[in-house]
Amino acid sequence: MRGNIKNILFSVLVFTIFGLNAQAQIERVEPPFWWAGMEKSEIQILFYGKNIADYQVSLQEEIPVTSITKTENPNYIFVNVETKGVAPGTLHFDFQQKNGKNFTREYQLKERRKNSATREGYNSSDVIYLLMPDRFANGNPDNDSVDGLTDKLNRKEKGGRHGGDIQGIIDHLDYLENLGVTAVWSTPLLEDNDPRYSYHTYAQSDVYKIDPRFGSNEDYKELASELHKRDMKLVMDYVTNHWGREHWMIKDLPIYDWINQFPGYAQSNYRMETQFDPHRSHRDHKYCVEGWFVRTMPDLNQENPLVLNYLIQNAIWWIEYANLDGFRVDTYSYNDKEGIAKWTKTIMEEYPNFNIVGEVWLHDQAQIAYWQKDSKIGAIQNYNTYLPSVMDFTLHNAVEEMFAENGGWGSGMNKAYDNFVNDFLYPNPDNLLVFMENHDTRRFNEIYDQNIEDYKLALTLIATTRGIPQLYYGSEIGMRGNKDKGDGDIRRDFPGGWAKDEVNAFDPSERTAQQQEFYNFTSKILNWRKSSEVVHKGTLTQFIPENNVYVYFRSLNDKKVMVVLNNSEENQTLNLERFAEELQQNTSGKEILSEKQVNLTGELHIDAKTPMIIELNK
Amino acid sequence: MRGNIKNILFSVLVFTIFGLNAQAQIERVEPPFWWAGMEKSEIQILFYGKNIADYQVSLQEEIPVTSITKTENPNYIFVNVETKGVAPGTLHFDFQQKNGKNFTREYQLKERRKNSATREGYNSSDVIYLLMPDRFANGNPDNDSVDGLTDKLNRKEKGGRHGGDIQGIIDHLDYLENLGVTAVWSTPLLEDNDPRYSYHTYAQSDVYKIDPRFGSNEDYKELASELHKRDMKLVMDYVTNHWGREHWMIKDLPIYDWINQFPGYAQSNYRMETQFDPHRSHRDHKYCVEGWFVRTMPDLNQENPLVLNYLIQNAIWWIEYANLDGFRVDTYSYNDKEGIAKWTKTIMEEYPNFNIVGEVWLHDQAQIAYWQKDSKIGAIQNYNTYLPSVMDFTLHNAVEEMFAENGGWGSGMNKAYDNFVNDFLYPNPDNLLVFMENHDTRRFNEIYDQNIEDYKLALTLIATTRGIPQLYYGSEIGMRGNKDKGDGDIRRDFPGGWAKDEVNAFDPSERTAQQQEFYNFTSKILNWRKSSEVVHKGTLTQFIPENNVYVYFRSLNDKKVMVVLNNSEENQTLNLERFAEELQQNTSGKEILSEKQVNLTGELHIDAKTPMIIELNK
Repeated sequence: MRGNIKNILFSVLVFTIFGLNAQAQIERVEPPFWWAGMEKSEIQILFYGKNIADYQVSLQEEIPVTSITKTENPNYIFVNVETKGVAPGTLHFDFQQKNGKNFTREYQLKERRKNSATREGYNSSDVIYLLMPDRFANGNPDNDSVDGLTDKLNRKEKGGRHGGDIQGIIDHLDYLENLGVTAVWSTPLLEDNDPRYSYHTYAQSDVYKIDPRFGSNEDYKELASELHKRDMKLVMDYVTNHWGREHWMIKDLPIYDWINQFPGYAQSNYRMETQFDPHRSHRDHKYCVEGWFVRTMPDLNQENPLVLNYLIQNAIWWIEYANLDGFRVDTYSYNDKEGIAKWTKTIMEEYPNFNIVGEVWLHDQAQIAYWQKDSKIGAIQNYNTYLPSVMDFTLHNAVEEMFAENGGWGSGMNKAYDNFVNDFLYPNPDNLLVFMENHDTRRFNEIYDQNIEDYKLALTLIATTRGIPQLYYGSEIGMRGNKDKGDGDIRRDFPGGWAKDEVNAFDPSERTAQQQEFYNFTSKILNWRKSSEVVHKGTLTQFIPENNVYVYFRSLNDKKVMVVLNNSEENQTLNLERFAEELQQNTSGKEILSEKQVNLTGELHIDAKTPMIIELNK
Repeated sequence: MRGNIKNILFSVLVFTIFGLNAQAQIERVEPPFWWAGMEKSEIQILFYGKNIADYQVSLQEEIPVTSITKTENPNYIFVNVETKGVAPGTLHFDFQQKNGKNFTREYQLKERRKNSATREGYNSSDVIYLLMPDRFANGNPDNDSVDGLTDKLNRKEKGGRHGGDIQGIIDHLDYLENLGVTAVWSTPLLEDNDPRYSYHTYAQSDVYKIDPRFGSNEDYKELASELHKRDMKLVMDYVTNHWGREHWMIKDLPIYDWINQFPGYAQSNYRMETQFDPHRSHRDHKYCVEGWFVRTMPDLNQENPLVLNYLIQNAIWWIEYANLDGFRVDTYSYNDKEGIAKWTKTIMEEYPNFNIVGEVWLHDQAQIAYWQKDSKIGAIQNYNTYLPSVMDFTLHNAVEEMFAENGGWGSGMNKAYDNFVNDFLYPNPDNLLVFMENHDTRRFNEIYDQNIEDYKLALTLIATTRGIPQLYYGSEIGMRGNKDKGDGDIRRDFPGGWAKDEVNAFDPSERTAQQQEFYNFTSKILNWRKSSEVVHKGTLTQFIPENNVYVYFRSLNDKKVMVVLNNSEENQTLNLERFAEELQQNTSGKEILSEKQVNLTGELHIDAKTPMIIELNK
């Protein structure tokens, strides 16, 4: 082939001008890159730009373009590419218009982190620390307000942004490690450009980008990396059900039914029961699943395969990009049932040892168990979520009440016993999240008026029963907060997270005596738990509470731990003969909290309102 | 063969004397007779008498004696005979002693009633009337006290015998038929020779015999027969879990482990949860199942095959003998799990269309559903009771509270809605017993202070939702009774059941205005229900309650009923568009209670605290 140098130069010039122009016209490519060797090898790349749908797209490389989807909105093209067997490298997409305009867009297929697919998610050997990043610590005051995002710093408002950020978390990882937690679940960090209450970040405006007021994508990656250096894990709070009204795609919908429309807004009836009620009306079910959580959160339509795939890819992208150890999924049971199951299944196929806990906020164990992977309850309706973990909300409800109650039938410690009785309904009780409180509930230390005895009993229960304990930030120093005064009050700033705070409770020397007492107990029990395999994995055997004293055992191979929770206001003496089947030949043990040897023949004395954790000696 | 007449006469004389002597020695034969052509064709006949085990037993007829069981107590022999293919007639058992003593005992194999095996049990087309016979009506004052039974008439004592009997029930069958109920569940009628509180008859002393203070076995048979003449059904209250201390077998145990012994008495912990708790201790489970309900009720050991078989045969005997239409089984979930399942399965194999409802008094739907036949919940633990029906105790709990509550989240009519949501847990929600109260609970008209509005709402719910409604005697005339004052108070005598009662509420002309108002409503709704197939069998579709108004539909083929329960203190107007999917083209209906036509376009007005039952016209 011969060519005139002038013509070639001209062509290059024309191409460059039009190309640059068209390149500029592409405002977004999502996912921004992908990886070679993924189980999800067919990726759907979204190209967004003014009238981009006018272009024909092709791939220079000999890799199958399996489909190209254009929607009613000319600003979108979805291009499916099968990357199976493709080595890491750069792909080149050619965009060509009928009038001859054309340009090329590069796309990276990166190399995966070694053993990425087999990563171990959090599990019952962990203790998860739940924090709200805006309220934990302000590591970088320079990003408290940023251009382009409406909601600015306003620490005086309970619902305003207080300035906490990713750097603040990174700065306190030693604190968390010493406390004895092994994983961090931060509430969402992706961009949320709502003009008010954006601090909670559940109304996201860009799900491929960390909110600049929290830091950058790189900062988030560093947080994961710093946690991993400490043998700790990072759990991302993922939102599949809705985005914010300020999301760029919501403002220029690819397709009318990208979100659920009535048209536009209708409020959810919040009746998750319509997801399984055999007598439900169609209308009630529709309003549950398709109604919006609140007016500022357009409800995503996971029945639309484009939407579902977008959410799947985004989730996988974050795991792979930031090297995550797990998800917590917001409002899991409000989603389209089939859609959310596919979402979960696809992620778990990509990462078989990953963990995902769904927020299934129901008050009935069969209803909660319905949502756990391989549930026999779900199977009644031929439903399987593939969701490995759910939250033990009934235990939470019990914890909110039991420590203020006597031990009558159904009250006091019987509420704990009654909860675990139904564990047979769960396919995997060891993968339940157990918690005293979270960022949406009443604070434990408010309910119990900062009574350290109640806290000790509750934390001992949470830390030694089956499941994955989750602690809510600040409770380890006795923090209170009244939900009746609004969500902001249960999401107060951690004292010392801001440079000029009066007290820095991160620093032992500055803690009040009360804070120190809470901290010491928490740190002691959680650090002991770290290496206590019998508590991570052992079988649980429980005895009917008597006189408000609850006794249970955890057993694994030749290890055994006896837990005694005396919730009564009286000292108690237990006749140990009742527990003979568990104690067997053991005649003594070491009580972990007091660090004293305990005789286990005859009777056991336990003080009023006191927990004991006894490692049996034999 | 030749014989000297004198010798023959001598032999006959000797035989007769010894024979008569030995015959007299057999004090009991159980079952006293059996039937030819039973599915349970291998029967185990118990012969009881002083040292009866010294004898060898054989059968004159050529019918297989499959086994002979002697126990540690020489007063018992259990003889198994296979009657398959044997025609009705008389069997002859020869009893022979080593010393030559011998005698013959006849045993009847009767002819079965035609279609006995295919009898239809009660079902959702029925309304069951629960009564306590001692407290309903005294039809025969001559049997109020009888020789040989300790507890005598004492109507002044709430816990004493008041004299009600089977004749009293028979005398009022027209009343019951007019009331609109279609089946009678009488609490137990078998002999109970406890010296006190024998009136409730759950501590039985002879389970093949109606207590003579209630009448005779023949009277019971007549009760069934009289009910059947009226197209009504008879439900027997059966007790598998325990007998009374005065039971003749308890006083001379066939075998040490016929009952559960510790040795002797230990009280049950009543923790039915230990039947499925995967974390239970062995000890707690043992005390639940093997502990005695109360000291006067020795706990039968259904793990012993002799005991289990005795209970199976006794149950079948009563069905066949008295021509029963169903059982209610006392304390079903306290029994040995495997034993009670075999008991139930065997009866249901004998009578495939029979019905049995178990008292499974739990407060969690998954736990209740566990016990219904083919339960997917039970199947988690590979357990199947074969029990067709269980009691909707969670609905009962809701009914006790909802009519005094506003309609907030989880309160008021939402409690009804929330209950039915979990119907998917039940293999057969249509075979649930639905009830406002029973003989062990608080009385509805006491809780709601005889408020007729609350009663109307509750009865409408019970009568029109899925399941088998059960009414407790006396509520139809507004009877009250305070459980806090003891069981006797919720088991007061029905006024007019005794000849000299001041008011005879069986007689309309003697009822107070209040009694009449209760009666009229009850009779109206129940008589309407008799022929309302759509309410017996129709699908149920429910709508989320709003403003404490609960709306649901029952649909069957082209029939549809709309039920509206306004539990609020305000008149309400419903926008009918919400119900369009059910109303479809219907524009009007007939309201059953007011007997008025109702327009179903636009809006529906309903008065405060009022039920409506609308039969759609189209």
